Amino acid sequence: MQERGMLIVLSGPSGVGKGTVRQAMLEGDYRDFQYSVSMTTRQMRPGEVDGVDYYFRTKAEFEADIAAGQMLEYAKYVDNYYGTPLKYVNQTLDSGRDVLLEIEVKGAMQVREKCPDGVFIFLTPPDLMELKNRLTGRGTDSAEVIEKRINQAKEEIQMMANYDYAVVNDEVPKAVQRIERIIESEHLRVPRVINRYKNMVN
Amino acid sequence: MQERGMLIVLSGPSGVGKGTVRQAMLEGDYRDFQYSVSMTTRQMRPGEVDGVDYYFRTKAEFEADIAAGQMLEYAKYVDNYYGTPLKYVNQTLDSGRDVLLEIEVKGAMQVREKCPDGVFIFLTPPDLMELKNRLTGRGTDSAEVIEKRINQAKEEIQMMANYDYAVVNDEVPKAVQRIERIIESEHLRVPRVINRYKNMVN
Repeated sequence: MQERGMLIVLSGPSGVGKGTVRQAMLEGDYRDFQYSVSMTTRQMRPGEVDGVDYYFRTKAEFEADIAAGQMLEYAKYVDNYYGTPLKYVNQTLDSGRDVLLEIEVKGAMQVREKCPDGVFIFLTPPDLMELKNRLTGRGTDSAEVIEKRINQAKEEIQMMANYDYAVVNDEVPKAVQRIERIIESEHLRVPRVINRYKNMVN
Repeated sequence: MQERGMLIVLSGPSGVGKGTVRQAMLEGDYRDFQYSVSMTTRQMRPGEVDGVDYYFRTKAEFEADIAAGQMLEYAKYVDNYYGTPLKYVNQTLDSGRDVLLEIEVKGAMQVREKCPDGVFIFLTPPDLMELKNRLTGRGTDSAEVIEKRINQAKEEIQMMANYDYAVVNDEVPKAVQRIERIIESEHLRVPRVINRYKNMVN
């Protein structure tokens, strides 16, 4: 029996650099996973390829997939749908390969409900950990700027609470290495491997 | 406020090579943890140093520590006590450093009860995963040998179920690397880091 692959969800607040980290993971040496291409109803842009950048679908097709329960997660931004088709994810996991999703926080929470045994990684802005020093240090920021950043940080920390791991995106290669090590370690977790052993002796 | 260190418990069936892996971890480059020296009532052997190989204590001293709740775990083998003094472990964790324990399976289960947020790593014999192939492959082993190894494997798998991670000890440097990556990844787990962020913005 083929062991199922692992679902890896990379997410984080907008602007944190999820796309850049994902791209670096795809171009790196590690690459022992399949990236899940998203589906969208927005117009294809010059240079984009259907099935590589996105699966480009009409609004009617996308809504039919939603109605049929064929979307792992989806959302509507500026009148267009974006989401993850369930079929490709399941096919890849069933073939024993890991799947990497890079999605927005709301989408990640939809996936968490459907796939609680996925690995949920929250990418944090590099200044979040140094925020206090930065804000109280030099005193060059206005009170308004400080308050805005603190409120934003509170929101980010609240999002983080729903994830398994927090990875700082201070430098892209470092963030990628941390994520790769998380993936390796998660493959050694007892709940993921013990059935393989049990099947062997029974 | 100093963040507390992480308790790492390395255990596994007897004969799996726990001591060798621990020694390699101590001699390696990584070494970002403190090894917890065990306490014993057995005689000091030539070349051994009190406080390095073991804390050597009399039976009365050891039993007084048990009575005072000063042992994180302990057991009696062949009329001698062996165990982990709580004080050194707590002092090191409070100072922010990780602590590595290398102990028997029974001791590890005592630690699990007292420190559920520790990281429990089960070292598995290299032939456990290949057992089926080995036993059904060439047919050179007797039925008795096969049955004995299968029963032993069943016991090992039952022990493993109580751990967080299973690491195969196929080659010592590989096992060490896996353990080091588990430690790095565990330090990125949200329940371990989120309070640091929360304290910062409040």
